[in-house]
Amino acid sequence: MDYKYLGTELSPEKIASLNRDERTVLCEELRDKIINTVSTNGGHLASNLGCVELTVAMLSVFDYTKDKLVFDVGHQSYSYKLLTGRFDKFDTLRQQGGIAGFPRISESPYDAFDTGHSSTSVSAAIGMARARDIKGTDEYVVALIGDGAMTGGLAYEAINDLGHQNTRMIVILNDNEMSIDKNVGGMSKYLKSLRISSGYLSAKKNTESFLNKIPLLGKAIIALIMGVKRLFRFVVNRKIPSMFEDLGLRYYGPIDGHDTEGLIKAFNAVKDLNVPVLLHVVTKKGKGYSLAEENPSDYHGVGPFDKSVGVRPSSKKSYTDAFAGSLLDVANKNKNVVGICAAMSIGTGMDKFAYKYPSRFFDCGIAEEHCVTMAGGMSRMGLVPVVAIYSSFLQRAYDEIIHDVCFMNNHVVLAVDRSGFVGNDGHTHNGLRDIAYLNSMPNMTILSPRDYVDLKLCMEYAVNHIDGPVAVRYPRGASPFEEEKGLYTDIELITKPHVVRDEGMDYVMFTTGLYDKVCEDAFEMLLSKGIKGRLVCLTQINPINYSEILEVIGESKFVFTGEEGILSGGFGETLKHEITTNGYDGRVTVFAVEDQMIKAGTVSQQLKLAHLDAKSISDRIMRVLRS
Amino acid sequence: MDYKYLGTELSPEKIASLNRDERTVLCEELRDKIINTVSTNGGHLASNLGCVELTVAMLSVFDYTKDKLVFDVGHQSYSYKLLTGRFDKFDTLRQQGGIAGFPRISESPYDAFDTGHSSTSVSAAIGMARARDIKGTDEYVVALIGDGAMTGGLAYEAINDLGHQNTRMIVILNDNEMSIDKNVGGMSKYLKSLRISSGYLSAKKNTESFLNKIPLLGKAIIALIMGVKRLFRFVVNRKIPSMFEDLGLRYYGPIDGHDTEGLIKAFNAVKDLNVPVLLHVVTKKGKGYSLAEENPSDYHGVGPFDKSVGVRPSSKKSYTDAFAGSLLDVANKNKNVVGICAAMSIGTGMDKFAYKYPSRFFDCGIAEEHCVTMAGGMSRMGLVPVVAIYSSFLQRAYDEIIHDVCFMNNHVVLAVDRSGFVGNDGHTHNGLRDIAYLNSMPNMTILSPRDYVDLKLCMEYAVNHIDGPVAVRYPRGASPFEEEKGLYTDIELITKPHVVRDEGMDYVMFTTGLYDKVCEDAFEMLLSKGIKGRLVCLTQINPINYSEILEVIGESKFVFTGEEGILSGGFGETLKHEITTNGYDGRVTVFAVEDQMIKAGTVSQQLKLAHLDAKSISDRIMRVLRS
Repeated sequence: MDYKYLGTELSPEKIASLNRDERTVLCEELRDKIINTVSTNGGHLASNLGCVELTVAMLSVFDYTKDKLVFDVGHQSYSYKLLTGRFDKFDTLRQQGGIAGFPRISESPYDAFDTGHSSTSVSAAIGMARARDIKGTDEYVVALIGDGAMTGGLAYEAINDLGHQNTRMIVILNDNEMSIDKNVGGMSKYLKSLRISSGYLSAKKNTESFLNKIPLLGKAIIALIMGVKRLFRFVVNRKIPSMFEDLGLRYYGPIDGHDTEGLIKAFNAVKDLNVPVLLHVVTKKGKGYSLAEENPSDYHGVGPFDKSVGVRPSSKKSYTDAFAGSLLDVANKNKNVVGICAAMSIGTGMDKFAYKYPSRFFDCGIAEEHCVTMAGGMSRMGLVPVVAIYSSFLQRAYDEIIHDVCFMNNHVVLAVDRSGFVGNDGHTHNGLRDIAYLNSMPNMTILSPRDYVDLKLCMEYAVNHIDGPVAVRYPRGASPFEEEKGLYTDIELITKPHVVRDEGMDYVMFTTGLYDKVCEDAFEMLLSKGIKGRLVCLTQINPINYSEILEVIGESKFVFTGEEGILSGGFGETLKHEITTNGYDGRVTVFAVEDQMIKAGTVSQQLKLAHLDAKSISDRIMRVLRS
Repeated sequence: MDYKYLGTELSPEKIASLNRDERTVLCEELRDKIINTVSTNGGHLASNLGCVELTVAMLSVFDYTKDKLVFDVGHQSYSYKLLTGRFDKFDTLRQQGGIAGFPRISESPYDAFDTGHSSTSVSAAIGMARARDIKGTDEYVVALIGDGAMTGGLAYEAINDLGHQNTRMIVILNDNEMSIDKNVGGMSKYLKSLRISSGYLSAKKNTESFLNKIPLLGKAIIALIMGVKRLFRFVVNRKIPSMFEDLGLRYYGPIDGHDTEGLIKAFNAVKDLNVPVLLHVVTKKGKGYSLAEENPSDYHGVGPFDKSVGVRPSSKKSYTDAFAGSLLDVANKNKNVVGICAAMSIGTGMDKFAYKYPSRFFDCGIAEEHCVTMAGGMSRMGLVPVVAIYSSFLQRAYDEIIHDVCFMNNHVVLAVDRSGFVGNDGHTHNGLRDIAYLNSMPNMTILSPRDYVDLKLCMEYAVNHIDGPVAVRYPRGASPFEEEKGLYTDIELITKPHVVRDEGMDYVMFTTGLYDKVCEDAFEMLLSKGIKGRLVCLTQINPINYSEILEVIGESKFVFTGEEGILSGGFGETLKHEITTNGYDGRVTVFAVEDQMIKAGTVSQQLKLAHLDAKSISDRIMRVLRS
């Protein structure tokens, strides 16, 4: 469609001056642009479609050049980006050098805070509101948080803190009944009770019947009424429970999140209250694209797709699929195996286990910390919990892994998905730290399978051969290795170094996991230049039997290590320290990620930027050998 | 006093068979033993005195050999330990090889879960309750959590998860209006509203007037009444807000936590409900020792003291005091400095800042994650937040430091107290990981001052000379260095290696912070044997200018590093990697903590166990030089 507004200069004043019909057109344009861009580039669809009217309403009331609008997670910020000067570049969404899929302060002065991980918005916004009060300025501060993100403990810590001080700040609770999957937990049930409580028919009806009357009153009067009478609440239902009010926030709602006019009135009504306000807004994930409305989970994060047909399930098997199958295999045989995930049963492949063993499956919400500590408790009772969480999100549970699992040597299996570079989600989502942080934890075994056969053996080994904390880490996407041709067949060999290629002793290279593919390619490049080495892939990277490593190195004077992970405390640095401490006096060169801020792009682009693609490391190896 | 019960065999049956008067005597004995032991050994006094009746009541109803009783934080578990077979050894409390100050599964089969950090109990207990349901056994599962710990997000994540399933489990909310300091936040206010709500006079009266009637009814009838009528709530006040019920738990209370008889009746009344129950119990921290009742903060964690006189403030200046003074100094000059702590204004020394600048001080509750993310938000607005948190607790915010501070290069100052060994609190509280985890974060500057002068310069440097994330880490206790004699005077030298001793080039040793003292002692021991080295102390340990390090090393063939921190990713491993990557080909030996489970004892005992005392490292250096 041709755009009447998008592509023109949309100053705060311009947006604020639009009338009802013009806003409706603008919302249509935003939806069209979002659907077109995401179907081409991939991205977060359903959450962005759910926030179109909400964003237009926010920018009709708040001045994006001055006020602070903080998006939780940030996967609903596309409309905001399109309205704040990034329409022209929006076709580069999630591409290398392009518009990020999440707010980025480095991208625009109008992005208030970087996001990507969940449940941070209220904390960040409180910080901004308190800073404003200290500095004596007068910005409005708004946090937009979904009901999914509200299951995260960080959000509660913030609301608990906010509730005891009279800071002027608005929390918009965007309630769409979803995390990435269907939302879970007591809070979710509670929000539902607010939506369906007696006397309340629908958010839409509520908004219409009441808010239309507001503009007749002056701002001061509105503030007075809103403040004293807690208007929405009472109009809707005097008996609505008051959990947020118990915590000290003033609660208004629920109102229709797709009625721009009602939202604008509501924002105007509450924005000048000198207390923290929680405005409960009900939206529909995927709104305006019927396929996404029907199956919002399928349209949460998507790759490119044909928008007339919709997303089609990938026929290509992924590491996640291999994990899902392996989990079922071990669970079929061992009835003590239980599965735990943090609001991502589909993303982690745990939905298959959940379908077969519903009573042994626990989705704890976006609550990585609780997942891990609960697993610790289960382990104390003899179960074998398998906790599947993406690498970068598992960071949230760093302390719990140490304190509630490792210190007690609890047998908990961490299934660490999305380890290594993840591509277009960018630096907040790259799983580059798991080796380093898990390496540093007591009693931890780390298994880093190369391929599907290896992954299957790792799951069997982790569940049935180990009696302590163990992490199985594997990357996003599909294996480049031939499916049936594993590194080894006897599970007892899992702890041993696997010699993958053995052409000579000019150098010995150690690697682990998927990164073995890059190393194999580099190995070939070097071989074609007459440089003959030995390539060794490790599945168990902690603990390592260093005498076996030294044996594999033999007399070679040059050792290299390669990994898709950060340098500090990682696989290579550790291996280097250990072998040099135990007598190796050749040269050890570590290839790892030194720049942790590598942005969105394809995984191969990210590898190149990190100088970790096959060409880069073969060149680097040559330089070392010749120096 | 002579004990009639303590010291005898106290089987679950025996405890359950005591009558009211006998229980009263037992409670007196427990208080006496706790006060005597803590005044001799140091430990947690106020929280333990507050839980005496509660523990006796729990063990009168629940079978400690079978049921799972999970103590949050665990600093209130002394009565439990005394009643479950550890009276005889209780004089060894918190000593090397003795009874730990927290529950330890390695110490007793009756300790259900190790604790030390806050807010874990509900999660662990849910894990146990779900495991029980899967395994088809019938234990009771009880979590005992304080209102302070309830400010932690992990507890909320657990309650949110618990609230949507009908798991039989009891959460005892031990409400004493305190974290370590006075509790803060909306939840705290809410609990207060429950305590003082109209119609409710006191927990004591409530317990007396109502619970006495219960035993006339049979168990099934009680369960029915409790289930259907939500008895306590309605008897007390029909208008009591229902936040916990909103989240899906059945709420009963508040009742008197010092009335053993009422508690027993309450436990019996709720224990067989097939739903999660939250029992709100009101206690007084320090109960029974008037000095502690009056000033519970002063009696939270104490050293040995004269029980007839009470705790006296230490006249000895500590690193914490030095931090407190330095913070005031920088805050006096820079009005953008704000202070943030997690329920520990006194422990961190931030109370002095709070007193002088109340509007610039924020106690966020036991909410390390929120503290850090909020600081990120403040930094975006131009403030300079100083976040003071103990090293081992800051682990909770690992992800937030990366995601909400480092990625945006936000100028946040982390004041990391209790780095290194902390002594009698044991392995859960040792601050051994901060160098490793902070080292691995992008844009992070780490300052590790040796003495008070150094610390003062570090605070000045962190606040006024740096524009990004910076951690200032310092240990527990008093500096062994002469106060006025710093390492350097010009603040610009902070980034440079400081040569502390320079007698020869037999070896060069690098260290940082307080550990310089151990290294100086080792240096002297070696010198007395004719081994002449160079000792170098670094204040800024990340980033390091390695060319300066190589210059200091010169031609020496032996380099050593020493630190009070874990090996993996730590100061020494990093330094070793960098100098060997940049051309150094001598031998580098790293002295760091390899066993992360070093238990309670004095700091010098812990150093010995880690082979990191002066004698051990001088011996180790000699062995290397002679090999």
